[in-house]
Amino acid sequence: MTIGKTGATVAMKGAGYYSQSTRGAKDVIDNATGMLVEAVAAIPEPPANTPLQIADFGAADGGTSKKAIRETVVALRNRFPGRQILVTYTDLPSNDYSNLFKNILGLTEDQDNNYYTEFQDILVHACGIGFHRQLLPDASLDFGFSATAMHYISEKPCEINNHVHVVGAGVETRVAYAARAATDWENILLGRAAELRPGGRLVFMNFCKDEIGRYLGNTDGINMFDTFNQLWRGMHDEGRISDAEYLQASFPQYYRNTEEFSAPFQDVTSPVRAAGLRLISIHTGLVKCPYRAAFEDSSNSMTTREFAVSYIPTLRSWSETVFLNALDPSRSPEEREALIDLFYQRYEDLVAANPNGHAMDYVHCYIAIEKEL
Amino acid sequence: MTIGKTGATVAMKGAGYYSQSTRGAKDVIDNATGMLVEAVAAIPEPPANTPLQIADFGAADGGTSKKAIRETVVALRNRFPGRQILVTYTDLPSNDYSNLFKNILGLTEDQDNNYYTEFQDILVHACGIGFHRQLLPDASLDFGFSATAMHYISEKPCEINNHVHVVGAGVETRVAYAARAATDWENILLGRAAELRPGGRLVFMNFCKDEIGRYLGNTDGINMFDTFNQLWRGMHDEGRISDAEYLQASFPQYYRNTEEFSAPFQDVTSPVRAAGLRLISIHTGLVKCPYRAAFEDSSNSMTTREFAVSYIPTLRSWSETVFLNALDPSRSPEEREALIDLFYQRYEDLVAANPNGHAMDYVHCYIAIEKEL
Repeated sequence: MTIGKTGATVAMKGAGYYSQSTRGAKDVIDNATGMLVEAVAAIPEPPANTPLQIADFGAADGGTSKKAIRETVVALRNRFPGRQILVTYTDLPSNDYSNLFKNILGLTEDQDNNYYTEFQDILVHACGIGFHRQLLPDASLDFGFSATAMHYISEKPCEINNHVHVVGAGVETRVAYAARAATDWENILLGRAAELRPGGRLVFMNFCKDEIGRYLGNTDGINMFDTFNQLWRGMHDEGRISDAEYLQASFPQYYRNTEEFSAPFQDVTSPVRAAGLRLISIHTGLVKCPYRAAFEDSSNSMTTREFAVSYIPTLRSWSETVFLNALDPSRSPEEREALIDLFYQRYEDLVAANPNGHAMDYVHCYIAIEKEL
Repeated sequence: MTIGKTGATVAMKGAGYYSQSTRGAKDVIDNATGMLVEAVAAIPEPPANTPLQIADFGAADGGTSKKAIRETVVALRNRFPGRQILVTYTDLPSNDYSNLFKNILGLTEDQDNNYYTEFQDILVHACGIGFHRQLLPDASLDFGFSATAMHYISEKPCEINNHVHVVGAGVETRVAYAARAATDWENILLGRAAELRPGGRLVFMNFCKDEIGRYLGNTDGINMFDTFNQLWRGMHDEGRISDAEYLQASFPQYYRNTEEFSAPFQDVTSPVRAAGLRLISIHTGLVKCPYRAAFEDSSNSMTTREFAVSYIPTLRSWSETVFLNALDPSRSPEEREALIDLFYQRYEDLVAANPNGHAMDYVHCYIAIEKEL
């Protein structure tokens, strides 16, 4: 689910563009290295004959978090030598766990940070059930981690009339999505509260709306989701797609702000507080779009078309399914593919004609949480 | 890896044939229901605040073991009410874990025995690392189960000169495969010994060579692996495949006999005994080929061609990769597919011309093991 991870469309580009696409997501995690180290330093020693347990919630293929997990393993091994360490990767049932295990076993091209083969007594499991439920046994988790995954809500409360993303929706829709996201956040936290050992820690890097209203792709004058909507709406107005097809394209996402993330910790009647979770720290941070940065780096001397060609595949890699699944199933696969190709071609042409302001900056909320001893 | 599970080629047949194909593998597990119930009755109560842990080693998509796992869950819940139960499915990295999780979550067509949705406090994990290593934390497993998986050896010690399976190989090759299988069996048992809680149990249903020399597809006068070899050799002798392509087709399998399965328990110097494992019971059993049974059932009045058409897909579903991967990678995909189609077409024609003795009877060794308290 993570933006910037390996997607088919990204992988089709040359090796240089591929590295660019994963660098942003890695930068986000690298921003939080201090938080990881601090969390590991804070957790208490688990009972005798018990493994240390780490989990990555919403791990996709495990690629972008490999370095962070390795660093966590090193820190845990230093603090508690000789302990077995169980790493559990979770994601939706549809995730590619085969690729995840190959990645962790060092059977893919990515040969960096292969902690499973580097260290003894590491165990790796996966759980293909959404993180809105409890996934691990009670009081078994020492350190839970999540990067760029929890903006996905468990289900859409409604379609969005006049936009493709709730960031551009009317007030009623926004309220409905906010309510769903609040319930989901509470369920995420209650699931983790049950799983955590007393004194255990969580570090989350979640997409957010920051204190001055910025969010993914909306930081530099051009709003990425407005652009998606404008182009999708255009295909509707030309009669290429139906009313229903326009309507069905909406992202099952919500970008919470720091107040929404903090609410279950502030409310003295919240079940999250009753379950023993405490907010240690919360702050927002921006990681610049690596494609935009490459374009602005004059040593690359890219044309506007080259920028557009490099920029669109990363957007397409995580957004394509939303538009593809909105199309009527009675259309042939070729017809659907042609419409989607046209859609992203138009986005590319728009950027090539005037690249000003197009950038997919990452806006995250970095959250550290503790379960009371 | 399990014979009789859903394969693409099987699924292409009509619904009747599909049920036939899974019935055999289920019969094997149903044969062992008494062993499962006995194992659950024997395990001691785990320490307080600890989940009960079950594992299925070599689970494929979890389909054929779903009923057995549900029955085990019911028996555990009755003995130890209120305990969380963690079920871990293991297989190779290449397994389809997405399908496994969909199956367990009740998101596939198979709506029977959905224990995850039926009961509270069930947790389901997967581990995509081969079972020749330790996969679960020390002393955490109450009950381990495996059906029709452990005949796969960790690597082939050599290719097989004059046959496609070690059952037809010369003595030197047989000795090399037996040695690899003995080391693998010891590693399987040592991995499980580390994982088991004291008093924990294992029940394995493994392909074997029985006391009178029968094994999969070699029970009724015609030897399935000899037939594979005869047809593959024929394609070589006609010049359709090269020497190397003939040689490279060999199954990474070994059918141990009861003496080989028992050896680590009998040898007083064995590390398996030192690790605390004890053999509770061992016996062999035969489950008749459901395709053959359907053909012999006169109420079906099948022609010999209909029998052949129903019989070959189940063989193809688990054997095809061996022959496909033996073909030179320089051949086009279409060329490789055509050769493989021809190979199985010839097998079908052979059976249709004279069905006598063609049957894939399952020959298993049923083993119960305990870890000393």
